[in-house]
Amino acid sequence: MAHGYLGDKAAHLARLKRIEGQVRGLHRMVDEENYCIDVLTQVSAVTKALESVSLALLAEHMEHCVVEAARAGDEQAGVKIDEVMAAIARLVK
Amino acid sequence: MAHGYLGDKAAHLARLKRIEGQVRGLHRMVDEENYCIDVLTQVSAVTKALESVSLALLAEHMEHCVVEAARAGDEQAGVKIDEVMAAIARLVK
Amino acid sequence: MAHGYLGDKAAHLARLKRIEGQVRGLHRMVDEENYCIDVLTQVSAVTKALESVSLALLAEHMEHCVVEAARAGDEQAGVKIDEVMAAIARLVK
Amino acid sequence: MAHGYLGDKAAHLARLKRIEGQVRGLHRMVDEENYCIDVLTQVSAVTKALESVSLALLAEHMEHCVVEAARAGDEQAGVKIDEVMAAIARLVK
Repeated sequence: MAHGYLGDKAAHLARLKRIEGQVRGLHRMVDEENYCIDVLTQVSAVTKALESVSLALLAEHMEHCVVEAARAGDEQAGVKIDEVMAAIARLVK
Repeated sequence: MAHGYLGDKAAHLARLKRIEGQVRGLHRMVDEENYCIDVLTQVSAVTKALESVSLALLAEHMEHCVVEAARAGDEQAGVKIDEVMAAIARLVK
Repeated sequence: MAHGYLGDKAAHLARLKRIEGQVRGLHRMVDEENYCIDVLTQVSAVTKALESVSLALLAEHMEHCVVEAARAGDEQAGVKIDEVMAAIARLVK
Repeated sequence: MAHGYLGDKAAHLARLKRIEGQVRGLHRMVDEENYCIDVLTQVSAVTKALESVSLALLAEHMEHCVVEAARAGDEQAGVKIDEVMAAIARLVK
């Protein structure tokens, strides 16, 4: 069963590359002793970018893996939904 | 007025370097087509690591910059608290 | 299609009744001029209780409504997943 | 030392009364077996309302209690900031 996100693999990789760059930028801000609030603002921006990655991956997982499991039977559906709910709880907490 | 976090500059830089590595690890997980839920779990871990960076920076900012501004007078205190409340709102939202 | 949460309706009603009582308790704390931090601690407790209600409702919605829609066909599944992803985004943001 | 929020006590009490009403509305939605997503949407609205209460209380606490403690001396400032950072961590987590 191909993972849901593979259809958007290139877009995810590009996003993560940008986020990696943003974190390097944070490192530079601290190294160059930028003002605390400016660093905090940038940390929030990186967190938001990660949030978007999570929601995109989650949607694709639901559209493919959860739907396929639902069609395969109650047991597979139950396992898949428990798993995705645990991932959602981590996102929310 | 030296920024609050400079006393822990090395620790912050090390943390951010680790987070940069974690994001690179995420990139590799997607590139190697790991299971969606495993990628989501790692995204949550990176988000939590960033949360810790934010709270540490915020505490040091409060202990130094906010306290100094409070002692400098009502106007400086007001400006500094409005600024830090905006940063906290971004963290909470 | 009966809603997913109806199997646990009594439990949800009891939880919401408790949360209503907690909010009344917050009102009393402010009215009796309790210390700010103690009020904030109680607000966080109410927020956590609401979070649990959300995650429980979401799980039941997934187990019933989303699974049924997945089995009914691609179009129904798509509508249902868009809807649940919007709810998750509101929870996460 | 009067708590920071007492200047806005009436506004906080009114907000909390509204939130109590919103939670009662949630109870009614579940009792009348409203659609899961509609109930979830309302839970998110109540959570957002509580978030605003928290941020308002926090700002007033900072403007009064934290500033007063900062001016009273390093030890009082340290205790107050540890306390407020613990409250912020609960809000963020």
